Amino acid sequence: MCSKATPEELYLKTLSQEPENQETPIPFIGMEHVHPSLFYRRNHFTYPEAPAEGITVDGLVESPGFFSLADIHALPSRTVETVLECAGNKRSLFEPKAFGEPWGKGAVSQGKWKGVPLKVFLEAAGWNKEAAVEVITVAGDKGERPDKKDIYAYARSLPVEKAADPDTIIAYEYNGRPLSFKHGAPLRLIVPGWYAMASMKWMERITVSKDAFDGPFQSIDYVYYPHKNSRKDAFPVTTMNVNSIIQSPADMEIKKEGTQVIEGIAWSGEAVIEQVEVSTDGGQTWGEARLEHQSGTAYTWTKWAFEWQEAEAGEYTVMARACDAQGRQQPMQAFWNQKGYGYNAVEEIQVKLK
Amino acid sequence: MCSKATPEELYLKTLSQEPENQETPIPFIGMEHVHPSLFYRRNHFTYPEAPAEGITVDGLVESPGFFSLADIHALPSRTVETVLECAGNKRSLFEPKAFGEPWGKGAVSQGKWKGVPLKVFLEAAGWNKEAAVEVITVAGDKGERPDKKDIYAYARSLPVEKAADPDTIIAYEYNGRPLSFKHGAPLRLIVPGWYAMASMKWMERITVSKDAFDGPFQSIDYVYYPHKNSRKDAFPVTTMNVNSIIQSPADMEIKKEGTQVIEGIAWSGEAVIEQVEVSTDGGQTWGEARLEHQSGTAYTWTKWAFEWQEAEAGEYTVMARACDAQGRQQPMQAFWNQKGYGYNAVEEIQVKLK
Repeated sequence: MCSKATPEELYLKTLSQEPENQETPIPFIGMEHVHPSLFYRRNHFTYPEAPAEGITVDGLVESPGFFSLADIHALPSRTVETVLECAGNKRSLFEPKAFGEPWGKGAVSQGKWKGVPLKVFLEAAGWNKEAAVEVITVAGDKGERPDKKDIYAYARSLPVEKAADPDTIIAYEYNGRPLSFKHGAPLRLIVPGWYAMASMKWMERITVSKDAFDGPFQSIDYVYYPHKNSRKDAFPVTTMNVNSIIQSPADMEIKKEGTQVIEGIAWSGEAVIEQVEVSTDGGQTWGEARLEHQSGTAYTWTKWAFEWQEAEAGEYTVMARACDAQGRQQPMQAFWNQKGYGYNAVEEIQVKLK
Repeated sequence: MCSKATPEELYLKTLSQEPENQETPIPFIGMEHVHPSLFYRRNHFTYPEAPAEGITVDGLVESPGFFSLADIHALPSRTVETVLECAGNKRSLFEPKAFGEPWGKGAVSQGKWKGVPLKVFLEAAGWNKEAAVEVITVAGDKGERPDKKDIYAYARSLPVEKAADPDTIIAYEYNGRPLSFKHGAPLRLIVPGWYAMASMKWMERITVSKDAFDGPFQSIDYVYYPHKNSRKDAFPVTTMNVNSIIQSPADMEIKKEGTQVIEGIAWSGEAVIEQVEVSTDGGQTWGEARLEHQSGTAYTWTKWAFEWQEAEAGEYTVMARACDAQGRQQPMQAFWNQKGYGYNAVEEIQVKLK
């Protein structure tokens, strides 16, 4: 059922139209790079009318200036394969429920992005790396927020170290083809390993700053608030948590008894997946799944499969939990937070065998 | 956000590929007839390779025989506008959960079907209506079931009265165009008012029978089993329950405070919707929604809207409940049954206003 390379009769699932928020049909996606028509779409605003055709660099730099698309295509390029996952992926699984787009498991995709490292722009403009505290990135989409009266552009910041990472790129190609408008053309920031609020579409501006950025998409949204009614203990959303999805069987599926193949994907923010375990008895005992490392990078997902031998008729809770090379493992209970970010509890489905 | 006539950037949501089961993006569907590309698809088996190009009539009839497509197009036609709803629609909302396809709210659509009343075939063949107990209908799709070893065609039966209802038709057109293969071409049975397991695609055979039919899609599936581990008190799934959907706001949506429009659709099996009430305080108080009767038939859905005046910031549970002309009202708690059919509890979402 899985691993179909072509997107025939598979579609995005629409959560909202304005702005357009749509999920990838993740149970049916294989190891390959996700077709652009099936890559999830997450927008804060309606699509921008005329995103800039180039990048402005300013702030703590010797030579502020503008890089046109022609300039950018002439710069040394880099290709990065990475998972992008919305920080709100699996939000609908939180208990108590968290407000916001009720993403299921499909606000995650992966693919191959080609572009120019952000640091190439910073170095070309002569940034003052020692004085810099953050690099602010500004996108071309803007609009109203439910909690504010003004119009805000979508803007965020990166710490200096992540901005200077050679894998943080400004991309103009996806899967070997020009990036599509809905996925950020002409230019999209790709920040591998981080939740994808950082990988902003329609990139327009890079500002090297001596201060921490306090725009609402940095200081209000994409912050973990662990308590229901306060901002105590808040901390920012950055790296993706270790996570997995059972792609088959489907939740609540009824199947014939006998040997079953349980399969899925697993990924983590900045580390290779080392182990995926599967339980068919609700978490009492665990067996190790077989991993198919395709590229072996820390940024891509790993497909896994587990053979459940001669399963007898009955109702079962099937679980999967991944562990990455940094020893991070999916917890039994997700870390609840007000805005519902970073859900990564042990993956769980139920199946009935007859 | 709602009522878009064109299906641009809206798609079906795939639950399974083989067989193909896909939901309509119901929050975005208006009063119009659902575009064929957005009409939900529910299959028990993979698509049939060569469904019969006509209808065989046999059993308790004077003149058993075959009606070709040309014969059928020459018979007097009838057009019926009706909701079709899968008996498992909203199954995923049951608590405790019920096994089977985990349909959300989108296993329902409506449209306009043109064809020939089933009774025209019965009368043309000279059926023995007095001796008949049921009319068996057999479709062209077949396959294995998880609980059986043999191959079964999809087959069911109708009581004589429903079979003889002039609105029960064998359709060859949908929304003024030839029926598409995936929705049952060349011929689909349409049984208005009943859950859509009755409205079988790829219709091939009508058998007038003096016995109650006991095929597995009649005697095992599409039966309400009210108890977890027994077949006690079982009774068949027939007419659609009174039901409603809140299309906007979306569940868990965050909006600006102020006046809100709550809108949706409501329908019932064999009666016009008379009233839809909305509660914005979790069911303590109710206000009446405005109904837009388009066609006024008992088989179509009714669009409704409710103005929630000057709503203040806060978290709210918003509910809707419909009542039909037979006095049937959505219950606070759905009638739980093993196979998860007929969910129609009061519709409920949560919204947060800022």
